[in-house]
Amino acid sequence: MLEELESEGQRTISSQGLAHQSGVTSAQVRKDLSYFGNFGKRGLGYGVSRLRKEIRLILGLNRRWRVALVGAGNIGSALYSYKEFRRQGFDIVGIFDVSADRVGQRWRELTIRHIDDLKDEAARLKMEIGVIAVPARAAQAVADRLVAAGMRGILNFAHRRIQVPPTVALRTVNISIELESLAFSIKGLHTKLPSEVSPRRSAS
Amino acid sequence: MLEELESEGQRTISSQGLAHQSGVTSAQVRKDLSYFGNFGKRGLGYGVSRLRKEIRLILGLNRRWRVALVGAGNIGSALYSYKEFRRQGFDIVGIFDVSADRVGQRWRELTIRHIDDLKDEAARLKMEIGVIAVPARAAQAVADRLVAAGMRGILNFAHRRIQVPPTVALRTVNISIELESLAFSIKGLHTKLPSEVSPRRSAS
Repeated sequence: MLEELESEGQRTISSQGLAHQSGVTSAQVRKDLSYFGNFGKRGLGYGVSRLRKEIRLILGLNRRWRVALVGAGNIGSALYSYKEFRRQGFDIVGIFDVSADRVGQRWRELTIRHIDDLKDEAARLKMEIGVIAVPARAAQAVADRLVAAGMRGILNFAHRRIQVPPTVALRTVNISIELESLAFSIKGLHTKLPSEVSPRRSAS
Repeated sequence: MLEELESEGQRTISSQGLAHQSGVTSAQVRKDLSYFGNFGKRGLGYGVSRLRKEIRLILGLNRRWRVALVGAGNIGSALYSYKEFRRQGFDIVGIFDVSADRVGQRWRELTIRHIDDLKDEAARLKMEIGVIAVPARAAQAVADRLVAAGMRGILNFAHRRIQVPPTVALRTVNISIELESLAFSIKGLHTKLPSEVSPRRSAS
């Protein structure tokens, strides 16, 4: 939101303005931001450009991250084309797969490599984040290899819960589960179910 | 997981087996399933094929859903090619945009239409679910139009929190926020932060 405001030339915004646009209360905005520092001026609000920079710093987005993409199928291909990765500072510098059809293929400036090369390539190219875009049944084995290759964080797009050591950060994106939850919620909103099962609307 | 087991020819699975593969306890598996009915036989476990069908029924996936995709950009295009939608029973039957460059373009069997046609097309083609794949600043206006067009559920891929009436189901997929959370978690795992800020690992 701050990026949008900055691109529109807006210099400052009040906590009420931030609250209104982000769907939380202004008290919450002030409380959350005050946790990290003193960013606003009473009566003047927050400087849009400064606050954007401070938040990127807090989030660890004031640098670029080198990413290994494992899985050169449907999802892997969509992710590789997804501009948001690069815009947020995440550079896919290696692509890995096991399929003989895919290994050796060229995707723009990268050649798809065999997963057996992951460890050496990760060290050589200083990769820190692994993206898992493989079938569910292979997800845990790939996660184990990424951990062994020294990744500090994993973003999992496979349709399977995976386990990693507590020293490795993990986030999951599961579009199938969102679709299933959506169908279940719609069904719940329009049929009688015990109150415990009635779906809650997503908080975000 | 049940789909995988079925395709591998496995007939039955115990609650321990389900628990082991899904990363929860077997007591939780039994408790969750017993909420919806009596699917297992003591000592025999669950029939894989039957349980898969029952769960799809519970989730509302025993039918097909007709979907309106709004936003024919980068994300919209990736979603339209994403086979998981169709496999889960979600058929994109209309694509909408505002850009003069995109409206009128043909994507496989569909012609991209102007968002002003949404209401008429939604009624004509009996669309029930809207997928939002537009820039953040347009997300709420698109959500309002989808609600006005009678959608029962919305899947939001825009990078903005949206508000819908309680009669409409809402789910959000925000890859940017996952990337930001991942960066923040990695940073938190490797720097000293107040304990309240130290990242928790994602639950799923």
